[in-house]
Amino acid sequence: MSSTALDPYRDRYAARTLGMTASEIRALFAVASRPEVVSLAGGMPNLSALPLDAVGAVIGDLVIRRGETALQYGSGQGDPVLREHICEIMALEGIQASPDDVVVTVGSQQALDLVARVFLDPGDIVLAESPSYVGALGTLSAAEADVRHVAMDDAGLIPEALREALDRLATEGRSAKFLYTVPNYHNPAGVSMTLERRREVVALAAEYDLLILEDNPYGLLGFDREPMDALRAMDADRVLYLGSFSKTFAPGLRVGWVLAPQAIREKLILASEAQILCPSNFSQMVVSAYLETQPWRDQIKIYREVYRERRDAMLDALSQQMPAGTTWTHPDGGFYTWLTLPGGLDAKAMLPRAVEARVAYVAGTAFFADGSGERHMRLSYCFPTPERIREGVRRLAGVVKEELELQAMFPGNAGRASRHPRPDSGQTAPDPGTVPRGRIGQAPPPDLA
Amino acid sequence: MSSTALDPYRDRYAARTLGMTASEIRALFAVASRPEVVSLAGGMPNLSALPLDAVGAVIGDLVIRRGETALQYGSGQGDPVLREHICEIMALEGIQASPDDVVVTVGSQQALDLVARVFLDPGDIVLAESPSYVGALGTLSAAEADVRHVAMDDAGLIPEALREALDRLATEGRSAKFLYTVPNYHNPAGVSMTLERRREVVALAAEYDLLILEDNPYGLLGFDREPMDALRAMDADRVLYLGSFSKTFAPGLRVGWVLAPQAIREKLILASEAQILCPSNFSQMVVSAYLETQPWRDQIKIYREVYRERRDAMLDALSQQMPAGTTWTHPDGGFYTWLTLPGGLDAKAMLPRAVEARVAYVAGTAFFADGSGERHMRLSYCFPTPERIREGVRRLAGVVKEELELQAMFPGNAGRASRHPRPDSGQTAPDPGTVPRGRIGQAPPPDLA
Repeated sequence: MSSTALDPYRDRYAARTLGMTASEIRALFAVASRPEVVSLAGGMPNLSALPLDAVGAVIGDLVIRRGETALQYGSGQGDPVLREHICEIMALEGIQASPDDVVVTVGSQQALDLVARVFLDPGDIVLAESPSYVGALGTLSAAEADVRHVAMDDAGLIPEALREALDRLATEGRSAKFLYTVPNYHNPAGVSMTLERRREVVALAAEYDLLILEDNPYGLLGFDREPMDALRAMDADRVLYLGSFSKTFAPGLRVGWVLAPQAIREKLILASEAQILCPSNFSQMVVSAYLETQPWRDQIKIYREVYRERRDAMLDALSQQMPAGTTWTHPDGGFYTWLTLPGGLDAKAMLPRAVEARVAYVAGTAFFADGSGERHMRLSYCFPTPERIREGVRRLAGVVKEELELQAMFPGNAGRASRHPRPDSGQTAPDPGTVPRGRIGQAPPPDLA
Repeated sequence: MSSTALDPYRDRYAARTLGMTASEIRALFAVASRPEVVSLAGGMPNLSALPLDAVGAVIGDLVIRRGETALQYGSGQGDPVLREHICEIMALEGIQASPDDVVVTVGSQQALDLVARVFLDPGDIVLAESPSYVGALGTLSAAEADVRHVAMDDAGLIPEALREALDRLATEGRSAKFLYTVPNYHNPAGVSMTLERRREVVALAAEYDLLILEDNPYGLLGFDREPMDALRAMDADRVLYLGSFSKTFAPGLRVGWVLAPQAIREKLILASEAQILCPSNFSQMVVSAYLETQPWRDQIKIYREVYRERRDAMLDALSQQMPAGTTWTHPDGGFYTWLTLPGGLDAKAMLPRAVEARVAYVAGTAFFADGSGERHMRLSYCFPTPERIREGVRRLAGVVKEELELQAMFPGNAGRASRHPRPDSGQTAPDPGTVPRGRIGQAPPPDLA
C-alpha cells in the first residue's frame, strides 16, 4: 500500500478521501487466505451446498432464451419481476410491501451507501450497535458520519441504552439521522433482538422521531426458530429495510435491496442511477430464474443445517479448549460468535501471533468506529469444515493460553505486539463494575457514548 | 414522482439530496418505450447480433465447473484474470498498463462516480466538453461539482478553447480538478478528437497541471478506421482512463473499469469497497470466459457493420427529409448524431409534439450542466432497425416542418409548448457571429464559460 506522504496526488483529493484507510479485515485477507491458515475471519457463505449443475443449466437456458433482455441495460430501480419475488420473501418476516417501494442494489452494501448518500452530511450522527458490522462502519466513515455506539447484550440492542443515547443527544441539541441495526444473528455479535425489544425500539423511534436502518442479511438463517417479525413489519414509515441474496443464494451475483417509504425510495433511485446507472439485469434475472425453478426454501433449510453443524463444532471446541475467563456469545443463527478475551489481553495485538500459529480472526477493533473493542474478536464458522473449525479453535486457544502465561510473567507487558500502545494498556482488566453485566461490547468511551 | 413539497422526510436529507432531480432521459423512457414510438432516444446497444446459444453454453458451463468461485465474494479491485484481459484490450489503443492499476467497476458509470468521490468536494470545478454525456453530468451534479463546458467542433474538443478556459480559471484564482472528455465517437456529439488535438490536449494538461478523465466506451466501434491512440497512451500520470464492456459485449453484465496511477487506484479501491464491497465475480468471470472462448474481435466487427448500416440509414434519411437550416454531425463510429434545429426552434419544447407523432429523441438540454442546448437534440441509431430509423426521421422531419410553419405564422411564439418560457425565447436565432463557426454545442453563457 502506498504511503500517503509519498502520494503525488494528495493535494488534489476531496476532503473525505484523506481519511480513507484500508479496513483491518482487508489487510488480513491476504494472509488469512493462505491454505495452511484456518480462517475464522471471513464471512463467506458456504456454497458447496448449492446444486451447481441445476443452477448452471437454469442460467445457460436463461441466456439462450432471454439473453437479449438479460444482457441489456435495465431500469435504475431494478427488475419488476425480481421486486415481486423480494416482496414475497420479505413477507416471511411479516413485512407488507409493494414492489414499487423496493430498489434493487449491488448487494446490500450499495443500499447502505445509497442511504448514507441520501441522508448524511459530514458530521451527522448515526447510532449503531456496540459492536457494529465493519462494512457499515466503512460506509459511514466514507460519509464522514459521527457514529455513536449503543450497548447491546444477549437479547440484542438495549432499549434503555438507546433512550439514554437519544436523551444525551437532545441535551446536546443534536439528533441522530438514523439508528443502524442488525436485529437477526448480528454481525459480529451473533445475537438477536427479542420480539419484545423490537417493539420497544420501534416505540422509541416514534417517541423520538428517529429513523431506523434495519439490515437483515441473515434473518432466514435461524437454527431453532422460524423468522421473527422484522422491525419494518412494525413500522412502515420510520424503518428502511435492507435485504440480500448473498447469504440465502450467492454473494457473487451482488444482488441486494432496500425497501423504503415512497419519497425516500425516489431519492435512492436517483442516487443509484448517478452511481451505477442500473443494477445488472443479468444477475437479477438469474436470481428470479433460480427462485422460480429451484426449491429455494429447501436450499435455505440445507444452508441452515450446514451452519448449525458448524456453529455446534465451534461452540463445542470453544468450551473444551478456551481458558477460564474467556467468554463468547451463543448464536442460534447466522455466521458469527463474538468472543471476549480474559482481562488484559488484546485481540488486535495478538493477531500476528495467531496467524503465526495458523489461525485467523477479526479483532474486535474493526467493529467500533473509534477503534476500541481490543478485548474482543469475531469468529466465523460459516466457511471452514467442522474439522477445520475445531483445529482452528485449538490453535487459537493455544495462543490465548500463551498470552495469559506471558501476562502472568510480565504483568505490565500484555498486548506487547501492539503497534499503538496506550498509556493504560494491559495494566489491569477493566473494572467489571463499569460495564453493565452481560453487555457484549465494551462500553463506548464517554465522549462517544 | 412525488412532489418535494410534500415529502415528509425532506428535512432529514443531506444537502446534496435536495438538488437531486430525475434526468430528462429518465422521464422520457416511459413514453419512448411504447412500441408505436420510434425511439431515437436510448443508447442501448444492439444485442441481436450476439450468438446467444454459444454464450449461454459458455456461461452454463462456467457455473457448473467453477460456480463455487463465480458465485462467491471476490476482491474489491476485481478479478486478476479479467484485469489481464482488460490490459490486452487497452493495448489496442496504444495503452501500456499493468493489471495492478486496473479497478473493475459496475459499468464505467461506477468508475465515474468513484473518481468523483475521491476527487470532488462540493463546488469543485470540472471541465467538460460542450455538450457532455448526460450520465457524467448526473454524477458530477450528485457530487455538487461546478461543471464548465469547453467548446468542441467536428474534430473534437478545441485545444484553444481549453487553454482559454484554463486561463480564465487562473485569473479567478481557481483550478479545475479534472477535464472530463469522451474522445472517440462522442456521446452525444458523434465526433472524435483528432490525433493532433489529442497531443495538444495532453500537452496543455502538462502545462497547466491538469488531470484528464478519459471516458472511452466506443473506441473500438469505428466504421472506417482502426482505433486511435488513447490520451492515456500519451500520458500515464495525468490521465485516468475509463473503459467498458457494455458496448463491445453486453451492458447487462455491468462490467467496466478504471485505469489510474497507483496512488489514485488505491483510493478508488477503498471508495469502491465502501460502496459495493466488491464487483460481481460472476459477471467478471462471464466476461473472461466470453473473451477466452468466443471470437470477440470478430463480434466487434459484426457490431461495427450493424451500426454502420444504421448510421447510413440515419444520415441518408436526415439528408432527404430535414428542412433547410437543420444541421447534424457525421459520426464515423459509435451510436449518435447531434442535430441542430433551424434558428428559433426549441428541441425540448418540441418533444411532446414529437412523441405525439410517435418519435422520440433526447433534447440537447440534457447534455449541458446549465440546461442550455435547447436548439439541439441527440439522435441515436444504435438500436432501431434501418427501416425504423428512416420512419423515425420521417416523422421527426414532419414535426420540425410544422414547427417552422408555426414559427412563420406566429413569429413570437415558437417553442410554444415550453413549460418554462424565457423572456427572449424564440424571438430570433442566436447571432451566428457570437458562436465560432462549426462549433457543435452552444457557446456556454459567460458565467459558466
